[in-house]
Amino acid sequence: MKEISGNTRLFGILADPIYHVKTPQRMNEHFARIGFDGVCVPFHARPDNLAEVVAGLRRLENLGGLIVTMPHKAAILALADEATPVARKIGAANVVRREADGRLVAHMLDGEGFVRGLRTHGVAPEGKRAYLAGAGGAANAIGFALVQAGVSRLTIANRTPAKAEDLKARILSLHPGADITVGTADPSGHDLVVNGTSLGMKPDDALPLDAARLTPDQLVCEVIMQPADTPLLVAARARGCKVHYGAPMLAGQIELMAEMMGVAPAAQR
Amino acid sequence: MKEISGNTRLFGILADPIYHVKTPQRMNEHFARIGFDGVCVPFHARPDNLAEVVAGLRRLENLGGLIVTMPHKAAILALADEATPVARKIGAANVVRREADGRLVAHMLDGEGFVRGLRTHGVAPEGKRAYLAGAGGAANAIGFALVQAGVSRLTIANRTPAKAEDLKARILSLHPGADITVGTADPSGHDLVVNGTSLGMKPDDALPLDAARLTPDQLVCEVIMQPADTPLLVAARARGCKVHYGAPMLAGQIELMAEMMGVAPAAQR
Repeated sequence: MKEISGNTRLFGILADPIYHVKTPQRMNEHFARIGFDGVCVPFHARPDNLAEVVAGLRRLENLGGLIVTMPHKAAILALADEATPVARKIGAANVVRREADGRLVAHMLDGEGFVRGLRTHGVAPEGKRAYLAGAGGAANAIGFALVQAGVSRLTIANRTPAKAEDLKARILSLHPGADITVGTADPSGHDLVVNGTSLGMKPDDALPLDAARLTPDQLVCEVIMQPADTPLLVAARARGCKVHYGAPMLAGQIELMAEMMGVAPAAQR
Repeated sequence: MKEISGNTRLFGILADPIYHVKTPQRMNEHFARIGFDGVCVPFHARPDNLAEVVAGLRRLENLGGLIVTMPHKAAILALADEATPVARKIGAANVVRREADGRLVAHMLDGEGFVRGLRTHGVAPEGKRAYLAGAGGAANAIGFALVQAGVSRLTIANRTPAKAEDLKARILSLHPGADITVGTADPSGHDLVVNGTSLGMKPDDALPLDAARLTPDQLVCEVIMQPADTPLLVAARARGCKVHYGAPMLAGQIELMAEMMGVAPAAQR
């Protein structure tokens, strides 16, 4: 990467623990690729200290913004001065832009990152019937983004249906015309099938949906990055489906995060 | 430099303005040279915000320490939990170690950096008679360090003699046996002649001492880095003296700062 000087703009990722984060590597590669004089570093903040850390970091005049991950995605919202409507409806953010006066504007890009990852792999969600397993953090972000991207229908299925109903209501409050249903474990009748739960991270996890009802015309998508081949994707492939891995969701977000934090390619400055 | 990951230890330099700092470049070179997984970045903090910035940064679990420069060297002392005796006597610090529990320990290395720079250039201060022009920030640090390093005598000369007397008293309070005198603009009768003032930074500055009294056996030393050839060094060379530039004082400090902040070469870990 480029030499860090007094002119280098500073970015960081807030996390606890911190050792596993991959955002500094990917973001610094992105800065190098677009010729931007910036550096992204790890900021290890414990939950009890998050407010004090953010109060201090926002006073750094050369800080461009913060990327926010576990366990700070919900807490950061209360510490920002402003949040985008989707971040407010989700109740969580994963990127914060610092404006010149120190104001912090929070946004949630997990869902847009997922959609950009789909597009990068040649999948356009417009007009597709989408099935979403889960109603937690990742599922929230993806639900909003799929509707925003123009799916013709969204079915949300969750072990606790009340949480799916709640997510549906919140998406409808931002997109009143959307066709959203609370569904069952059966994903048939959809073009896109998305696992938005954490089921599949551990070897003995149950499947997040009824894989026996998958059909070969479906694209089955993961948010889980490790393992890359979750039991769901293995089952989906066995049933003749195409699959979409979890990794592109992060890759798709790096550019979006950089844009949100005011980073523009050299040619556009 | 090495790729920044979630395991990379974080260091920064607090300054205002920030664009001109060279510490990130030199410290990151040092980390690369010794195989240490660390990164030093610019932290641009305005004086009014310093307390809040430091309160936040000290809560970053992966922060190893802070380097402190203009205009924060005096203010940082009040924000640290602990200071070394020399930093307390000088009333300023330029490096802060963050301990694992978030405690901040401040130290002043300007003087030790100057002495290490001398040694790197083959000059041992032990037993030398030293003349120091100035009693401000840099002169304070150098005065303490020269006595600590074992000069046989220290003469302090300042436009306002009371400030020289005050510096003398503070050095004596830490080194009761030292031979310290308040002198005049005449540097004759000394082996080392050190400019510890800022006179020479601007083209029309007066000389910091009576250059007509320099003798060819003397080594004349600068703290000013830009210009490298100050009017004092030009005059000293014209009178047959050897000269010592301002730059080695910073170079000498990089290793000392890294050590103070707990950075050890790979082989020693």
